[in-house]
Amino acid sequence: MKTTFRQKYLAAVLFCILVLNTTLSFAADSLPSWNDGPAKQAILDFVKSTTDTSSLKYVPPEARIATFDQDGTTWVEQPLYTQVIFAFHQVGVMAKKDPKIAAAEPFKTVLSGDRAAIAKLKMPDLLKILAATHTGMTVEVFQASVKAWLATAKDPRWKRPYTGLVYQPMLEVMKYLRDNGYKTYIVTGGGQDFVRVYSEQVYGIPPEQVVGTVADTKFSYDKNGKAILTKVPKLILDDDKAGKPSGIHMMIGRRPVAAFGNSGGDQQMLEYTQAGDGARLMMLVHHDDAAREYAYGPKSKVGNFPDTLMAEAGKNGWTVISMKNDWKRIFAFEQ
Amino acid sequence: MKTTFRQKYLAAVLFCILVLNTTLSFAADSLPSWNDGPAKQAILDFVKSTTDTSSLKYVPPEARIATFDQDGTTWVEQPLYTQVIFAFHQVGVMAKKDPKIAAAEPFKTVLSGDRAAIAKLKMPDLLKILAATHTGMTVEVFQASVKAWLATAKDPRWKRPYTGLVYQPMLEVMKYLRDNGYKTYIVTGGGQDFVRVYSEQVYGIPPEQVVGTVADTKFSYDKNGKAILTKVPKLILDDDKAGKPSGIHMMIGRRPVAAFGNSGGDQQMLEYTQAGDGARLMMLVHHDDAAREYAYGPKSKVGNFPDTLMAEAGKNGWTVISMKNDWKRIFAFEQ
Repeated sequence: MKTTFRQKYLAAVLFCILVLNTTLSFAADSLPSWNDGPAKQAILDFVKSTTDTSSLKYVPPEARIATFDQDGTTWVEQPLYTQVIFAFHQVGVMAKKDPKIAAAEPFKTVLSGDRAAIAKLKMPDLLKILAATHTGMTVEVFQASVKAWLATAKDPRWKRPYTGLVYQPMLEVMKYLRDNGYKTYIVTGGGQDFVRVYSEQVYGIPPEQVVGTVADTKFSYDKNGKAILTKVPKLILDDDKAGKPSGIHMMIGRRPVAAFGNSGGDQQMLEYTQAGDGARLMMLVHHDDAAREYAYGPKSKVGNFPDTLMAEAGKNGWTVISMKNDWKRIFAFEQ
Repeated sequence: MKTTFRQKYLAAVLFCILVLNTTLSFAADSLPSWNDGPAKQAILDFVKSTTDTSSLKYVPPEARIATFDQDGTTWVEQPLYTQVIFAFHQVGVMAKKDPKIAAAEPFKTVLSGDRAAIAKLKMPDLLKILAATHTGMTVEVFQASVKAWLATAKDPRWKRPYTGLVYQPMLEVMKYLRDNGYKTYIVTGGGQDFVRVYSEQVYGIPPEQVVGTVADTKFSYDKNGKAILTKVPKLILDDDKAGKPSGIHMMIGRRPVAAFGNSGGDQQMLEYTQAGDGARLMMLVHHDDAAREYAYGPKSKVGNFPDTLMAEAGKNGWTVISMKNDWKRIFAFEQ
């Protein structure tokens, strides 16, 4: 191949752009929404030591697994889990098609809009609502119903789509980890099929990297003989508390080196992460900012952060992230 | 930045190497162990049409999912599934530590080495053997036992490690698909924890891309308070027949566009793959080469290929791979 001066010149320019770009990206702050402090420093130190081949804490690329709880860790969970709000909405959709649903409990209570009565619903009622709204349809029909709801539903406090209520600092951590060779996973007590609908768009995490609570599917054929999967109300994985390490083992098959949570439901995931050899990063988001988001802790029914968890964090050297002090901004839409 | 002539020259040389390299790699045969014929052509046509942005059959990179059954599709399954041979071996290991095992059935029969008696073992006996050899230990202890066995065990016919008995043409298909942006998965009726031990080394497939039969794990703490997972005999996913589409949905969350199998256990996976929109590739390995490997079909207890499956393949346009005619060589060690 004969190269002209022009070609050589162009190649050299390309080369320079590459070098400059790399230099610039290393100099930039990867966590701009974080205030300087121990939490931000813990993340920076962890990434530096686990990706530096000369470090004793170096972690080979294939072992770089980071897991993130979702509700309360990467997006708002108060006053009610987003998926429960979706389920309540779906009861309305179903009642329009089938008046028998409108007349039967616990659906009647949900449709009444009576908040006090809804708050009194017991676990068997909630399971009935989840079964009715999350099973009995093909996987594709369920996914479409989640998509349709997310496109129009808005959180009453911020008047924004629920997928807009993700924590900007956590999105930055996820991206920073990925830019450093980490594979990021959502490990949530929420429904796997629910979260997978928006995980790529919202978190940059593909569906196959979402581990959540799993109900079974049943294989059969539709009237045209086409193979279909129907969601059925049989629990396969309860991805909460001790279920999280089991879910991680089943779905990933490797122990995470970094894990992020915010409640008692994440304790075992963090313990399991810490029990591995070498460098480890365990972090808990603490909701202590009523002005910008919510402040809740040991007494909350949603996202319970018991005092025993705070004590364990201290004893084990886990980093507690104060939303108030560690986060410069909480949402991308803030200035 | 000021560039000297030397720098410009070096940049241009690098540029040329890159261009030449790309050109050469496109010209090479990606499937050298395949004879020219309809099977090889089906793979080449499928990859060409699904990766060409101007093609109506173009598949975006994130949707490029290809699933491979293991036993009989990517490695030898005759005369007995490799994992069963491992289980029988483990009975011996356990009997050495615990004489009570040596005295009890069905372990006594296994230890006798009496092939006729072993062949007569019923399903409840096999389940007892699998439970004893695959559960009751931590995940790490189990993985170490598989690793130790694989390092020394040899297939009696070829006198080679079992991991050496993988089909070279299938390794080439996997690599060819990956080189074209496909994510390759093993979807096996075999134990997920078993296959994950060697999947990266043997297939270039990381543990998180192995879907197999899953037994549950129990979270607890060892005597030092360290978090551990113990394998327990509770079936979570029976990844065979109709369990394969469900397992794929649970573990991947996307419908494959290409699927490879070899027996009745793969029928539903291929049907599920075909039921999606757009380009699809469904292939079945047919064992018809007694000289170089094995010839078996509808009457085989291991890797059964019923006549109804062959009929369905014809009706649905699935490609049947003849090991005898389509494969130039079967194993990497052949010349």
